[in-house]
Amino acid sequence: MNLTGEMLIGQKAVKGSRDPIHAINPATNERLEPGYAGGTQADVENACQLAWEAFDRYRETSLEDRATFLETIADEIEALGDALVERAVAESGLPQARIQGERGRTCGQLRLFAKTVRAGEWLDVRVDPAMPDRQPMPRADLRQRHIALGPVVVFGASNFPLAFSVAGGDTASALAAGCPVIVKAHAAHPGTGELVGRAIQAAVKKCGLPEGVFSLMFGSGREVGTALVSDERIKAAGFTGSRSGGIALWKAAQSRPEPIPFYAEMSSINPVFLLPAALKARGEEMGKAFVGSLNMGAGQFCTNPGLVIAIKGPELDVFIKAAGEAVKESSAQTMLTPGIFEAYENGVKSLQDSGKAQEVARGQKGESPNQCQTGLFKTSAQDFLASHALQDEVFGSTSLVVECADEAELKKVAEHLEGQLTATLQMDDADLDAARKLLPTLERKAGRILVNGWPTGVEVCDAMVHGGPFPATSDSRTTSVGTAAIFRFLRPVCYQDLPEGLLPDAIKNDNPLKLRRLLDGKREK
Amino acid sequence: MNLTGEMLIGQKAVKGSRDPIHAINPATNERLEPGYAGGTQADVENACQLAWEAFDRYRETSLEDRATFLETIADEIEALGDALVERAVAESGLPQARIQGERGRTCGQLRLFAKTVRAGEWLDVRVDPAMPDRQPMPRADLRQRHIALGPVVVFGASNFPLAFSVAGGDTASALAAGCPVIVKAHAAHPGTGELVGRAIQAAVKKCGLPEGVFSLMFGSGREVGTALVSDERIKAAGFTGSRSGGIALWKAAQSRPEPIPFYAEMSSINPVFLLPAALKARGEEMGKAFVGSLNMGAGQFCTNPGLVIAIKGPELDVFIKAAGEAVKESSAQTMLTPGIFEAYENGVKSLQDSGKAQEVARGQKGESPNQCQTGLFKTSAQDFLASHALQDEVFGSTSLVVECADEAELKKVAEHLEGQLTATLQMDDADLDAARKLLPTLERKAGRILVNGWPTGVEVCDAMVHGGPFPATSDSRTTSVGTAAIFRFLRPVCYQDLPEGLLPDAIKNDNPLKLRRLLDGKREK
Repeated sequence: MNLTGEMLIGQKAVKGSRDPIHAINPATNERLEPGYAGGTQADVENACQLAWEAFDRYRETSLEDRATFLETIADEIEALGDALVERAVAESGLPQARIQGERGRTCGQLRLFAKTVRAGEWLDVRVDPAMPDRQPMPRADLRQRHIALGPVVVFGASNFPLAFSVAGGDTASALAAGCPVIVKAHAAHPGTGELVGRAIQAAVKKCGLPEGVFSLMFGSGREVGTALVSDERIKAAGFTGSRSGGIALWKAAQSRPEPIPFYAEMSSINPVFLLPAALKARGEEMGKAFVGSLNMGAGQFCTNPGLVIAIKGPELDVFIKAAGEAVKESSAQTMLTPGIFEAYENGVKSLQDSGKAQEVARGQKGESPNQCQTGLFKTSAQDFLASHALQDEVFGSTSLVVECADEAELKKVAEHLEGQLTATLQMDDADLDAARKLLPTLERKAGRILVNGWPTGVEVCDAMVHGGPFPATSDSRTTSVGTAAIFRFLRPVCYQDLPEGLLPDAIKNDNPLKLRRLLDGKREK
Repeated sequence: MNLTGEMLIGQKAVKGSRDPIHAINPATNERLEPGYAGGTQADVENACQLAWEAFDRYRETSLEDRATFLETIADEIEALGDALVERAVAESGLPQARIQGERGRTCGQLRLFAKTVRAGEWLDVRVDPAMPDRQPMPRADLRQRHIALGPVVVFGASNFPLAFSVAGGDTASALAAGCPVIVKAHAAHPGTGELVGRAIQAAVKKCGLPEGVFSLMFGSGREVGTALVSDERIKAAGFTGSRSGGIALWKAAQSRPEPIPFYAEMSSINPVFLLPAALKARGEEMGKAFVGSLNMGAGQFCTNPGLVIAIKGPELDVFIKAAGEAVKESSAQTMLTPGIFEAYENGVKSLQDSGKAQEVARGQKGESPNQCQTGLFKTSAQDFLASHALQDEVFGSTSLVVECADEAELKKVAEHLEGQLTATLQMDDADLDAARKLLPTLERKAGRILVNGWPTGVEVCDAMVHGGPFPATSDSRTTSVGTAAIFRFLRPVCYQDLPEGLLPDAIKNDNPLKLRRLLDGKREK
């Protein structure tokens, strides 16, 4: 498929008229063709209007039709073949195997959402039948189901050109919920975006759905994104990116005459606590494993371990020494974009200049452009508690060890943390009591708690929570990865005394969808 | 029990030091003793600190203990006996039978939430067991449960001194979720608040819970409320009241360094659509029934029918004539507070002065203070569409009939509406097609859709949705009435590879709570 540099507004391909974006191959700083001219307010208007017109019909598609649509998208993405992988590698600097894996995850999560759609539990059907003879007042017939919120805007993420971009987790869960989606493609990988966008566009056509179910827009700067989030026909948005970008768009969403849910996944340093017995037993081994996690994808995962917390002493010194040696041996890796590389360099420099963090080790310097040099720093708990800037995420493979005087200070550091996507405990049996004391704090701070693993990597499944208290996300009540992500785009509606002929299938008397309803206070079997 | 005019901070009774509030008996304008001196920033500080200290323990109470606590509150409220009813009548001007009914609803909803807590479905337990041999990557053991958000602030409502105030729906659902609650009592009924507050305080003690699980504060103006919502230890809030009050507090909640969910139920005019066949068959009967709904509780229900929409013609004239006659016969009723009465008078005057609404009829004038004179007005669809002010809620028993030229204009009016708590269809079999065409619009606009009923009155049950798009509420994804209200105060947490000794009961391997988990993608039976 030849890339055309066009936006996809419904079934049309539309050339933008703002300054074009070009992807840059970060490994070479080479500019990639074609240019992607940005959309105008009129393009936003068209995409929103088509989405709005598609909404009522799309949200009432049958469970089977909607699931088939998600599966068709997955098939169409796979049918893109090597062209997709090659373009994504060129635009992201990520290794081919990683992109192939990410394609698998992307298609897998579309198919997993298809399964979730078919199961229909997300409808949360509740039926309280009429009780005409109840005293002192009769009860009406009351039925609840969930419906889609409305058209959703999805912002592609820089660090997952497939799994969290055009057909990524936000798009899949919004489409699963019955919401048309307008994607604002990330400027770092517009070609990958176009390819995947055309796959979705083809799936819309194959499935005979209204064209406004999907559009794909380009634009540099914040003009297109802000216009989309501000449009009255848009009823929710999903975002993965920087804290400043997320908060700016979140504010736009809250400043509308009708505020809307804005799901931003923004900033997390993913603390790892090394408990004493584990540290004593396997400090060296942990040091190496930690750096393995730190270096994954050049540290450009939301769940990268940017903070290690432990009690000071010779056992921690062993860990730091082993980690430091592993850091020194770490090869430089190409980062996603020149901008991300620059921000990483600035973040490391801020740590160095802070006067609060001591450099333990640096990895190998890059020999080609935009390469991330791994970094390990350490600081005292006292300095960490006194300097909020030490909690700022450095996006890339740099981490900070916080040395605590004792268990009490370690707990204090834990309480001092901002909201996180993950918190990890390295522990042995003898640490169980200490872990138990720490657990309530971690539950309040993070969306996912790991024991004896490393946070990098997120399984797409029913039980996953990729979320957490602010600023990890803008809404701790939700997850952006895993099947529970569908709940972000739904709202309940209650139907009182509707005649059978007016009731949606999900809440009809004879339960044609065979759902396990909450019927008169009891769950059906 | 003698009223002392004190706040309840944990197990202590504390005299405030700001200007005291006195309740006013709206039926007589008599000032009721005692005075309730308002809290200071230091009192807010104490209440928040106690709530924070109680949180980790309270959120981990067993399902049985927490359910028993809710039931104990209900028992303690009932044990207050006639004193509660008398004080609530004096402070609200509502009839005794209404207050007795409301007490029944209040205790009933506490017991219903106890049942919901015991059932444990709200934990939404999901278990994806480890797959160590999976290719290309093993899967970790992943388990999800929901935990409470944190301490919650509840704002008492003027119009439900029991069912939506100190021990009302917001409090019951937050306590059910495992959140300590600080209630900011409504200034209109502080004595009722103190009585109910002491009942909760007694239940906390009887159940051996940490004292910070519940506090009750007083304060005139917005100082105490804003301080509570702004405190970093508060993690959510529930509010029922005016649009301006709700939006001001919602903004405070969003402006914090860590924004929090703020559930405001604010403003709804609850449109009723009279479809042609129904109008033809029973216009007169509907006119009378409509005014019955309009006059309930002097129109001071969130779900009061403030708007009637139908196609112009002799059939609608019959309805308007019958409704007008019923309005003329409507006795004046005491409103909740002098302030609400004044706002009602101003709202009616705005309609009269708008030049867009024609007076159809007024009810009988009051002979004692603060009495609501029923009002019925009509306008054209054209004027309604052109004048946004005609959608402003007039809190009280005044309603506006919108006369449409045809079905298309009626649909246009429906699309023009702001978000609503309810939307009602009066229809006969012959209206089924018209209803079907209108339904998607109503689903997008309202949280509850009724057929051939009247919106006033809200059943407390599993299927209820008392919510709806902005400005009906600040968060259409939720309900404030019914058992689904518990979800407002929860967030998911994922546990990865935790040793059995560290796992909470809800997600332990042997499932000691006997929950129907989503296990490896399948719902357990």
